[in-house]
Amino acid sequence: MLSKIKIAVDAMGGENSPKKVIHGILENYKENKDVIYNIFGDKEKIELLLPKNYDKKTFHIIDTKNKILDTDSPLSAAKKGKDTSMWLTIQSVKNNESDVAISAGNTGALFVISKLNLKMIENIDKPALSALWPNKNNFNVVLDLGANIECNDKNLIDFSIMGSSLYKSLYPNDEAEVAILNIGSEELKGNEIIKKAYQELNNRKNKNFNFHGYIEGNHIMDGKVNVIVTDGFTGNIALKTAEGTANFIVKEFKDSMTSNILGKLSSLINFKNLNKVKKKLDPRLYNGAILIGLNSPVIKSHGSTDYIGFSYSLNVCIKVVKNNLIQKIKDNISR
Amino acid sequence: MLSKIKIAVDAMGGENSPKKVIHGILENYKENKDVIYNIFGDKEKIELLLPKNYDKKTFHIIDTKNKILDTDSPLSAAKKGKDTSMWLTIQSVKNNESDVAISAGNTGALFVISKLNLKMIENIDKPALSALWPNKNNFNVVLDLGANIECNDKNLIDFSIMGSSLYKSLYPNDEAEVAILNIGSEELKGNEIIKKAYQELNNRKNKNFNFHGYIEGNHIMDGKVNVIVTDGFTGNIALKTAEGTANFIVKEFKDSMTSNILGKLSSLINFKNLNKVKKKLDPRLYNGAILIGLNSPVIKSHGSTDYIGFSYSLNVCIKVVKNNLIQKIKDNISR
Repeated sequence: MLSKIKIAVDAMGGENSPKKVIHGILENYKENKDVIYNIFGDKEKIELLLPKNYDKKTFHIIDTKNKILDTDSPLSAAKKGKDTSMWLTIQSVKNNESDVAISAGNTGALFVISKLNLKMIENIDKPALSALWPNKNNFNVVLDLGANIECNDKNLIDFSIMGSSLYKSLYPNDEAEVAILNIGSEELKGNEIIKKAYQELNNRKNKNFNFHGYIEGNHIMDGKVNVIVTDGFTGNIALKTAEGTANFIVKEFKDSMTSNILGKLSSLINFKNLNKVKKKLDPRLYNGAILIGLNSPVIKSHGSTDYIGFSYSLNVCIKVVKNNLIQKIKDNISR
Repeated sequence: MLSKIKIAVDAMGGENSPKKVIHGILENYKENKDVIYNIFGDKEKIELLLPKNYDKKTFHIIDTKNKILDTDSPLSAAKKGKDTSMWLTIQSVKNNESDVAISAGNTGALFVISKLNLKMIENIDKPALSALWPNKNNFNVVLDLGANIECNDKNLIDFSIMGSSLYKSLYPNDEAEVAILNIGSEELKGNEIIKKAYQELNNRKNKNFNFHGYIEGNHIMDGKVNVIVTDGFTGNIALKTAEGTANFIVKEFKDSMTSNILGKLSSLINFKNLNKVKKKLDPRLYNGAILIGLNSPVIKSHGSTDYIGFSYSLNVCIKVVKNNLIQKIKDNISR
């Protein structure tokens, strides 16, 4: 029998915690029996949320009294950190007691605490924050999303390797198709850093992904590539702009379709179809971000997601462990 | 009587030209009788598109046999340029024969030819490409969108002044509300260039706009600010990402709502409401871009827009002349 996957869970991060975290774990456990959840947080509160006779081996609670607040700066979080649920969650992967760590708490703090405790993968210079982003066929992996405001060409190449390894971990049957985000599709466009990375990726042999050159913002969702590489400043702005645009348009549709009796009636008739779109665009499906480049993956679930969203993030944890994300990155870095 | 506004029009640029340009002019003329259109292009073709007894003073055709192609590089365009419709259109504002220039042709070529022929406004270091972008209330002016890949803090401050002057020219009754696009709303976020621009704008007295600090991508369309300032790389990616996201979602809605008989029926019932959204999001309403920073404004209509879109761009030409865009910029630069 294969050994069980051990997930270190910070139960105290994000809105409405630990409730949404524990309910998310219970939801996730329905479909995943080969997992042990090492849960860090206020044991008293957590036990109230679990069934009375819960399996103490599967839901292994480590009582922690302190926690990082959303208002803590990364530095103050790191200082006060050592007895917090977040710090101990990361320590658990550092000490090989867990395979992967997850938190819905303060992103900056999680990033700093992870970097302080976990080693970088050899030959990777900077870890990156990556996320899933829907496209016409399925999902893109996009990175970096804000961990590194300024990047050099080596970083962009590392991101290509890490992003394609993540994609292959999440979708083992697909090819990874990589492109660099740029303001034009011609070779001449963009700054020197981007051009250098383009040259290097174009010339590289034996990579475990196909390189498609540049992609412009309006083609991100076309589904022709599935790994989008960019610096953290641009990636963060692109992701958030997409989010804002999506919210804006969905709201316009909603408002207009229910602005009068006829609209309400027809939306009612069309309820099923509208729900299908809603489901496909449900941000809980691709909630959160994945910090990669460290010796263990660290998953950041969105602070405002609910237990369903948290459960999806736990699925990501399971997939990256099952499909050996870290080993995939190491294999490709050393080629 | 006020003198008429003279618009230099490149009739040969963009898809389906000169037809869409001439039909756009005729459409625009319906509502604007105080305009003279100086039309540069193939006179024979153009006259076929005008009514037989057209008013030769209002529709003043300057016969040009050559034109810039979409496939021309900016440099080759500038070299072959001097007898092309685009070059002569720009010359017309240079020689004070027109107040403003417009083309739906090759953006890079238009940019280079404009910079070669027109002087910069004193104390502005770089011209910027700006565009309109819908928000909850109305429209944002966003700049730069790709003219300057790298910008310093002075450029960002210039963009604030130019953008707010453009906004006040288009919406004379509104206040200009400026924000810098960034990856967080806190003062600490972003790179050094952005932080310097923030400080300077925050401390500056007597500006003709309100400064709101930083804005993140997901709040661009909230309608709380209406002038968004950023470097050309980030702005281009943000705009195109928004465009791609909007197309993606509208298509998902459309597909789902017509995927079966009930869907089709309800969409039919709701036809009027859906059309309202479509109209509000109609890209022709805010098509094209405005090159500002030169001594005359140059309007770039989208190459693929139709005559209605071109007519809207002509409205932008009229507004920036009527409301003294260039003088507004000069007044604010020298404060």
